[in-house]
Amino acid sequence: MTFQVYDTTLRDGAQREGLSYSVVDKLAVARLLDDLGVGFIEGGWPGAVPKDTEFFRRARTELTLRHAVLVAFGATRKAGRAVEDDPQVRGLLDAGTPAVALVAKADLRHVERALRTTAEENLAMVRDTVAYLVAQGRRVFVDGEHTFDGFRHDPGYTAAVAQAALAAGAERFVLCDTNGGMLPSQVTAAIEDLVARTGIAPERLGMHAQNDTACAVANTLAAVEAGVRHVQGTANGYGERPGNADLFAIVANLQLKLGMPVLPEGCLEQMVRVSHAIAEIANIAPDTHQAYVGAASFAHKAGLHASAIKVDPLLYNHVDPAVVGNDMRILVTEMAGRASIELKSRELGLDLAGHPDALSRVTGRVKELEAGGWSFEAADASFELLVRSELPDAAPVRPFALESYRVLVEHREDGAVVSEATVKIRVRGERVIATAEGNGPVNALDEALRVGLARHYPELREFELADYKVRILEGSHGTGAVTRVLVETAGAGRDWTTVGVHPNVVEASWHALVDALTYGLDKAGAPLNAAGSGRGPA
Amino acid sequence: MTFQVYDTTLRDGAQREGLSYSVVDKLAVARLLDDLGVGFIEGGWPGAVPKDTEFFRRARTELTLRHAVLVAFGATRKAGRAVEDDPQVRGLLDAGTPAVALVAKADLRHVERALRTTAEENLAMVRDTVAYLVAQGRRVFVDGEHTFDGFRHDPGYTAAVAQAALAAGAERFVLCDTNGGMLPSQVTAAIEDLVARTGIAPERLGMHAQNDTACAVANTLAAVEAGVRHVQGTANGYGERPGNADLFAIVANLQLKLGMPVLPEGCLEQMVRVSHAIAEIANIAPDTHQAYVGAASFAHKAGLHASAIKVDPLLYNHVDPAVVGNDMRILVTEMAGRASIELKSRELGLDLAGHPDALSRVTGRVKELEAGGWSFEAADASFELLVRSELPDAAPVRPFALESYRVLVEHREDGAVVSEATVKIRVRGERVIATAEGNGPVNALDEALRVGLARHYPELREFELADYKVRILEGSHGTGAVTRVLVETAGAGRDWTTVGVHPNVVEASWHALVDALTYGLDKAGAPLNAAGSGRGPA
Repeated sequence: MTFQVYDTTLRDGAQREGLSYSVVDKLAVARLLDDLGVGFIEGGWPGAVPKDTEFFRRARTELTLRHAVLVAFGATRKAGRAVEDDPQVRGLLDAGTPAVALVAKADLRHVERALRTTAEENLAMVRDTVAYLVAQGRRVFVDGEHTFDGFRHDPGYTAAVAQAALAAGAERFVLCDTNGGMLPSQVTAAIEDLVARTGIAPERLGMHAQNDTACAVANTLAAVEAGVRHVQGTANGYGERPGNADLFAIVANLQLKLGMPVLPEGCLEQMVRVSHAIAEIANIAPDTHQAYVGAASFAHKAGLHASAIKVDPLLYNHVDPAVVGNDMRILVTEMAGRASIELKSRELGLDLAGHPDALSRVTGRVKELEAGGWSFEAADASFELLVRSELPDAAPVRPFALESYRVLVEHREDGAVVSEATVKIRVRGERVIATAEGNGPVNALDEALRVGLARHYPELREFELADYKVRILEGSHGTGAVTRVLVETAGAGRDWTTVGVHPNVVEASWHALVDALTYGLDKAGAPLNAAGSGRGPA
Repeated sequence: MTFQVYDTTLRDGAQREGLSYSVVDKLAVARLLDDLGVGFIEGGWPGAVPKDTEFFRRARTELTLRHAVLVAFGATRKAGRAVEDDPQVRGLLDAGTPAVALVAKADLRHVERALRTTAEENLAMVRDTVAYLVAQGRRVFVDGEHTFDGFRHDPGYTAAVAQAALAAGAERFVLCDTNGGMLPSQVTAAIEDLVARTGIAPERLGMHAQNDTACAVANTLAAVEAGVRHVQGTANGYGERPGNADLFAIVANLQLKLGMPVLPEGCLEQMVRVSHAIAEIANIAPDTHQAYVGAASFAHKAGLHASAIKVDPLLYNHVDPAVVGNDMRILVTEMAGRASIELKSRELGLDLAGHPDALSRVTGRVKELEAGGWSFEAADASFELLVRSELPDAAPVRPFALESYRVLVEHREDGAVVSEATVKIRVRGERVIATAEGNGPVNALDEALRVGLARHYPELREFELADYKVRILEGSHGTGAVTRVLVETAGAGRDWTTVGVHPNVVEASWHALVDALTYGLDKAGAPLNAAGSGRGPA
């Protein structure tokens, strides 16, 4: 049977404390996961979670997947209700995905104490729901909640749930270590016992591990070594409590250590980029020490063995870092090297290989900016503007030049909170002063800038600020620290992300806003004029 | 043979990028590790690293260990030099520790290409150095560098190094996965092969794993299951690249999952305290998602199953969190009902069960606030203030009342960016107007408020803004959307998190800042006066 790499970043991974994706975030994460070549993307629980319903609705027109199959997640029918009449099951069908994952109780204690129904009714719920969805043309996966704990408590019942699911037509039955307490040797023993007891072919089983013993990746590999051919995980191991199994480490280990090519050719090297971009979208600082993809994961203190490392890097690295898109770092420098910048530029359709001088300038500029806290990993539009500003034929034209701005926020005696901004700019030789109010300082500034530019660039009205993220950079102290702002803008059928960094959140936002407008107007083919720098990062 | 829990936080763990301990730090970390009951503490490389020489000198008088044996780390003698004349070996003796660990090359390629000596001379270096130190009355451990890679490349040579070390009197030979590329099944196979080949009893072997495949903990457990009775690790897994095996997860798994009581009675429950204190000393934010010890590692989104969790917490936790000194936390999320609010309040030491009316009011208030975008999931301090404001005996006193504030951000013509804030408040009947500048609008506002309160509340100077997070709430539109701010404040030996929500980021920050000061002053026992509402969430 085919090996299945099944991602649940957008469903189980979203249970991580403090994490919250917008629908636009979810679409962006799905595209990144597809770039990595995962086989399945579990997008959420339609019907139960309004945002997820909306995600699946928009996915139909806005998400074109090259590798992955989209999966809607839900539960078996309610106890005592016909499956056809269960609105939750209806919600799964309405999502219109080719595949559905159903969570089923696989631990008798949870059936009795949490679900409060009988052992037999729970089995009927599994059978009915699977059969119904299969009859409706869906591929069905069944996640056995608390499989391992249940199997330890009452192996016969848990085995019966697995058999019921597969007999009713489920493609795979997924062994879920829901509480995350397993060790690899225990996983091996449980799977062998389950297979011996039921005769289920291990290829029809899947593995879903949580990291409560710090063994989630190893538990998943143990399952694969026991014959399982479906692995679930999340990007960067995000998830509830200590998290889920990190899909990136699983996949890299399978490909590079066990020789199982589970991703399409050429996809593995996307891993670092995908990992970091998802971290940015999740607004979680990338873990610099994460296996395979962390910025420090192939970093060596040079010292005595520098020359030995240079001659024989594989004596000091467990794999070639390039195969996952990472770099070996010898000195304590910031990350971006020429090779990755060239690669990234090529991705954006810009040929830096033919312009070695420009490549050097861009590399130098990126290193300098990264040392100051900039990050282009999730801000392709800002990166493109930066690269193009070094390429003679492609330099972006800045739509205006800033003279000054001023933003005021007042909490008045009557309790009203007001924000007002004034910008003084030069547009096509004309000096413009514009003032606007907003819901907050950045909104007021954005509005004032739009008012100032409206006459010359009417197409600006189409652009909408879709998301705005602020991060205080690591190692810093509170509101006095360096601030990184990401602005996502949507308009004219596309969306793009820009970045700004400054100790002052308003100034950081200004950088990102100006880049956003510059990029958007450029792509919209607006007739720009060279009015000078609009204070983008370049 | 005795099971040995061997900590290398202060030696190998200190290789983590960006980490640097002072001698005082090292002494403090050693005391904490001893509290946890580890058997051995590897303190550093005396002679080679001046700070480590100093650490061992001071340890003689300043470090009284109840459980652990102090170990000096170093290398085998230089090639072509008599062991008695090797100053590096002399340095190890001068450290005056009961035990010494020696790193020995166990991969022939490294002998030839990095050490640049012969296979035979390397074996002689191992024999000579071990025998000499044993003769000087030291317990000796030998770390076989690159054991696994070497064993794969040339098993006979690596086996010869292990045999030489043990024959010369080493207590244990430690299998080091120096490049960190192993998987558990490979560890098992290699140990079985080595044991079969040499007849070495597995109890005389140790395991040292690095986390490059995200399997360091599992690799260590695999070694123990293969008979190894000495495990090395570091606090919180600190170390080079992705880090070392996390000693805490190893020990918790051994005790709680494999039934091996490797720590002295009563020590395991020190784990959370020791973990967080070492993170504090290392100046690394504790990983909230770390297995066993993370603040989120036993956190549950309550919702539907709150009552089931209350009755049967062990159905939802893989172990009782109290055994490692952790707590179960119930997250107050969107689905928060009465049960989870009562549970959460009890966690904070507030009895709402005895005040059903207050419980109703709090539940209503939380629902209303959450509908408006508030979230108390990560803001226990704000939640506590809210609950207490409904409990007659516990209502927090607000330190001041706001009249108005004003914040100005200017990007001037000369490029300078300035922020200035003015607050008008009433403190203990006095009207105070205060102005301050800051790096950004929120910092300026925070500074102005502190200036205004300084005379009445000098203890405010101890509070520091440790982290500041901004999130634009989902389903919203760009800078015009609702903003949620989380402020983490540290001071007087604790830290607390508060939340503010408003369309205006400055006003949202104001809410969180005021809650932070209110909570901090309350806990510091400052004499507050009832000046009215300071505009916290309640």
